Amino acid sequence: MTNDHQIVLLPSGRRGTVPEGTTLLEAARSLGVDIESICGGKQICGKCLISPEFGEFAKHGITADASGVSAPDAVERDYAERHNLNLEEVRLSCAATLCGDAVLNVPERSLARKQSIRKAARDVTVTVDPACRLYYVDVEPSTMGTRGDWKRIKAALEKVHGVSGVTLDPALLPMLQRALRECDWTITVTVWNDREVIAVQPGFSEKIYGLAVDVGSTTIAGHLANLRTGEIIGTHSVMNPQVRYGEDLMSRVSYGMMNAGGVDKMHRAVVKSLNTLAKEIATEADIDPAHIAEVILVGNTVMHHIMLNIDPVELGGAPFALATEEAIDMKARDFGLKSIGRGSMVHILPCIAGHVGADNTAVLLSEFSGARDNISLVVDIGTNAEILLGTGTDIYSASSPTGPAFEGAQIEHGQRAAVGAIERVRIDRETGQPTYKVIGDDRWSHSLAADETLSPTGICGSGIIEVIAELFLAGVLNPQGQFASNALENPYVRPREKTAEYVLVPAEKSANGKDIVVTQQDIRAIQLAKGALYAGIRLLMDHMQIEQVDEVKLAGGFGSYIDPKYAMILGLIPDCDLSAVSAVGNAAGDGALIALLNITERTRIQEMTEQVHYVETAVEPAFQDHFVAAMAIPHASAPYPHLADILPAPVAAEATTGRRRNRRRNR
Amino acid sequence: MTNDHQIVLLPSGRRGTVPEGTTLLEAARSLGVDIESICGGKQICGKCLISPEFGEFAKHGITADASGVSAPDAVERDYAERHNLNLEEVRLSCAATLCGDAVLNVPERSLARKQSIRKAARDVTVTVDPACRLYYVDVEPSTMGTRGDWKRIKAALEKVHGVSGVTLDPALLPMLQRALRECDWTITVTVWNDREVIAVQPGFSEKIYGLAVDVGSTTIAGHLANLRTGEIIGTHSVMNPQVRYGEDLMSRVSYGMMNAGGVDKMHRAVVKSLNTLAKEIATEADIDPAHIAEVILVGNTVMHHIMLNIDPVELGGAPFALATEEAIDMKARDFGLKSIGRGSMVHILPCIAGHVGADNTAVLLSEFSGARDNISLVVDIGTNAEILLGTGTDIYSASSPTGPAFEGAQIEHGQRAAVGAIERVRIDRETGQPTYKVIGDDRWSHSLAADETLSPTGICGSGIIEVIAELFLAGVLNPQGQFASNALENPYVRPREKTAEYVLVPAEKSANGKDIVVTQQDIRAIQLAKGALYAGIRLLMDHMQIEQVDEVKLAGGFGSYIDPKYAMILGLIPDCDLSAVSAVGNAAGDGALIALLNITERTRIQEMTEQVHYVETAVEPAFQDHFVAAMAIPHASAPYPHLADILPAPVAAEATTGRRRNRRRNR
Repeated sequence: MTNDHQIVLLPSGRRGTVPEGTTLLEAARSLGVDIESICGGKQICGKCLISPEFGEFAKHGITADASGVSAPDAVERDYAERHNLNLEEVRLSCAATLCGDAVLNVPERSLARKQSIRKAARDVTVTVDPACRLYYVDVEPSTMGTRGDWKRIKAALEKVHGVSGVTLDPALLPMLQRALRECDWTITVTVWNDREVIAVQPGFSEKIYGLAVDVGSTTIAGHLANLRTGEIIGTHSVMNPQVRYGEDLMSRVSYGMMNAGGVDKMHRAVVKSLNTLAKEIATEADIDPAHIAEVILVGNTVMHHIMLNIDPVELGGAPFALATEEAIDMKARDFGLKSIGRGSMVHILPCIAGHVGADNTAVLLSEFSGARDNISLVVDIGTNAEILLGTGTDIYSASSPTGPAFEGAQIEHGQRAAVGAIERVRIDRETGQPTYKVIGDDRWSHSLAADETLSPTGICGSGIIEVIAELFLAGVLNPQGQFASNALENPYVRPREKTAEYVLVPAEKSANGKDIVVTQQDIRAIQLAKGALYAGIRLLMDHMQIEQVDEVKLAGGFGSYIDPKYAMILGLIPDCDLSAVSAVGNAAGDGALIALLNITERTRIQEMTEQVHYVETAVEPAFQDHFVAAMAIPHASAPYPHLADILPAPVAAEATTGRRRNRRRNR
Repeated sequence: MTNDHQIVLLPSGRRGTVPEGTTLLEAARSLGVDIESICGGKQICGKCLISPEFGEFAKHGITADASGVSAPDAVERDYAERHNLNLEEVRLSCAATLCGDAVLNVPERSLARKQSIRKAARDVTVTVDPACRLYYVDVEPSTMGTRGDWKRIKAALEKVHGVSGVTLDPALLPMLQRALRECDWTITVTVWNDREVIAVQPGFSEKIYGLAVDVGSTTIAGHLANLRTGEIIGTHSVMNPQVRYGEDLMSRVSYGMMNAGGVDKMHRAVVKSLNTLAKEIATEADIDPAHIAEVILVGNTVMHHIMLNIDPVELGGAPFALATEEAIDMKARDFGLKSIGRGSMVHILPCIAGHVGADNTAVLLSEFSGARDNISLVVDIGTNAEILLGTGTDIYSASSPTGPAFEGAQIEHGQRAAVGAIERVRIDRETGQPTYKVIGDDRWSHSLAADETLSPTGICGSGIIEVIAELFLAGVLNPQGQFASNALENPYVRPREKTAEYVLVPAEKSANGKDIVVTQQDIRAIQLAKGALYAGIRLLMDHMQIEQVDEVKLAGGFGSYIDPKYAMILGLIPDCDLSAVSAVGNAAGDGALIALLNITERTRIQEMTEQVHYVETAVEPAFQDHFVAAMAIPHASAPYPHLADILPAPVAAEATTGRRRNRRRNR
């Protein structure tokens, strides 16, 4: 009978008894701490480092001395020498065995499931447990009468790594025998979902990457991650080439309807761009795109359908039927992604409903993780506003037809958020004089010398929100969004047709030498857009039977630029403590990244999408009522106690005496 | 509580009790007789016809009258009228229900697993139970808030047919919504292996076909079958275009070695031919190739590797390692077969060893079915002779390097078996005068008028076997295969170099105006080939520890032309009752067809190949000994009691006093 020894793992403090001679790796695994090992204990990969700690550990009631762990053998000493490793501090846990009680410190980087933290708009933390994993095997050489190459690889996978029942993607057969022979019968295989070998590399390799892509209507944005460490090693965007077939989604749907082969053309265009994106992001990160094992794709339902070459025509009208809403796993080559590995996979997140696509699912994944009680409102504003409302377990979703006004379209001097666009506006309450900032410059226009100019090219979404809100606060606009009866007394307001316009930038200061103005028409467009957005949110609050949200997250590009205060003054979003309103950046991209790095999250989100309460705004009569009521600034029906000291007195009085604040009426 | 009724099914005689109101279809299924139903009981497909029988059935102890089965309702009467069905004789078993005791006659054509009989070289009977099946479903229409198209199809599949957990080939997504809407929310799907939807057809369809192909070194031969009925609806061959890269296998292996991109070139050539074959066979049978749901491929190991674009170089030398020997299921599109359905499958039968390919597995499938005790020897002669020896459960296999002599190569006037080739030869024992027949003509040359000729173009494999055997029987050749010392006295023998040659056809009778002769060199080539073949067989008999086989089956083209008697006289095969020697035609093609039509047979053969005892002739010292001993005609070591009255007296005496006949020495 062998002796048993006490071990304690740090930093977790897990403890247990293991038999003498157990490797440190096996000891840690037996106590539930999974250690990374690509090579399966061959002392090749060096991923399984563990530090034995010595001394008395009163807290853990254990004394550990150097004799508790076996001395390094020649192979380990050789490895240490080649990799400059101090064996007195760290050991290859697959090689070192237990000879006595021991305290073992497991560094984060040796865990099979590491924590990955993304530094972007904010931190996103995800446990690295991807669908694709590397396994290094030393395969029995081929001799007379042995089994074929694949069967011997399979046997080694089972013996060394306990991975059984895997199949081989037949498309890899042409490269199998060379890969196996190139490094003397050693090979590293990439296994997808413990099910299929999707890549082979000769000898030992650590190369395994993944790509998470948000296929937006305008921009296709990707993150490249190391699937072993979870590290983000590249970020890259390309334009969505479909823009040439229509700026907004509905015009692309009709392009597909009006033109034979139109859908196929748009499909090929987006697939081509994805191939380009993969190649470029790989080049920038200095990796071989062939080592990209998996690509996660998210997008709205129209993008989802077109990228799968499904005619989006059904999404153009009721009943907005999806061809499929299920998550899709397919070969990248079947998708048309041929710039990456021959056996690589594509995973497309599930959709929720005809207007709520895989991009929303991704937002759900990044913003509604874990069980929580507080009520979050997540708004992703594009041509449609995608709205998610709920707790960690009870979630409502809707899509509101805001139109493209927030993106600068339908606005006389509107433009996309790009360098030169006015993004911030302040208006003097007394004089009505504007000051503004443009994207790409930190200075306010009023701080410049007389002969200097910011040369604005137009107004982007956040700029138009601010200028309208400021005009309202300055009394130039009335709560109905019309130029006030005395507006023309303001030197920056001049008549236009039957109404007026506000001159934000005079011709001599603008980039193209023409006045940049805000028209009654522009204001009307924004009122319609924000009315639709608020009505959608309000509808979900009705369904959830709440009067108040605890936090508001603004997702997407527009959400990043917009000032929460102005969004609230104009009534885009319901009342909320301003400090609880935040921009979350590309939440869809973050969600795609989470799905890329963690397979369990995919299962979770699949279940979650099936439980989401989808509310179809197009068929709810209450939507129209909310919409009409929400046109005013800020609309009569909504209480905004958090804005009491900002809004003009009479309006604020009305607003703060609105309906009584009830967290949830009926729950 | 409902009443229970007695039912008896004919012709099986199965009986049992079922509750009142059960449909005849369910009643039959509950007694283990599976009835075909594509439409799942919607009274659309008419596949489930059953005849209720009336009267006293003393043998079964049951009396059945018309009241035992429900009267037809309007839908069934309407179906009967449209399809000219007499409802007094047959009923839609999905519609008719039981109201009393009943005797139900189930015609063969209504069985879910029919018997298919192929009429070719011989009958091959196989139960039709293919991997691909059709299911018709009536899907819930899309309305506001319903699930996507695919989820609703899946729900209908589960509800109507009990098929659950199937996935959809994502490549079908582009055609799904149109197919579903074209016939008012009805669709017929093809499900592969109860696992994946691989095709969709709008409305109700019975169209499902499969292709079984033997990819031979020279000829690619396919059978097209209806996967519902098992009927063979087409047979078609094309040349293997790889012939231009080398006649025999080893020259193709070296073409791949010597030429960059050579393997890929050969790969693309064979895939192109398979596409052509599929298109042509479909056109001839007047079906749409898109309805070919599955293709079974078999071939020797070199063909197997090249068709998968695997470099066959490893098969060119020891240890003859296969990249994989496992059965392969893959998408036809990944294989390169794009002329058939977009989601269709390719199944490649498993290989056995480096020289024993999927074609042999197919032969195993067609010739070693079921548990049997008698010992079969199956020989498939090509450039290599593939040998299978055993009972239904204990099987030995080897490949013998016969070279191409049997195919007419390496023979001075040899040629492939084609019209004009001499295939039969008789030599007058007294005069030495030959008479012969050519392929494509039924007449013997000696029966022609003096001014007539058969204009032979050369000698094919069977002809060269016969002429050498006849020369031996006529005493022109001695048992060592040399021209006898007195051979030159024969008027048809003339000197050639240090030895002689036999004039089979004088110049004035041949097609090209030159003598067709048999040289010492030719005889030597055949001796080497037949020595190798016999040595391989003998080696397997040693391994199996037997001295006698019960039957000999000659497979392949050469096996069909050769006369078993001459094969035995020359010593190609061991002694056996001549009536137990038969040609089985393209047994590999038959095996492919069996695998196409019956999924259970695939599992069986997979297990069987793993149990086959493969004997590598190249490393067995005994092979060389057997080979040397087998060069003589008939060789000294082999007893041929069945030829005692044919062989020349002294030889026969020696042969029949050989080793004692032991069935199995040690078992």
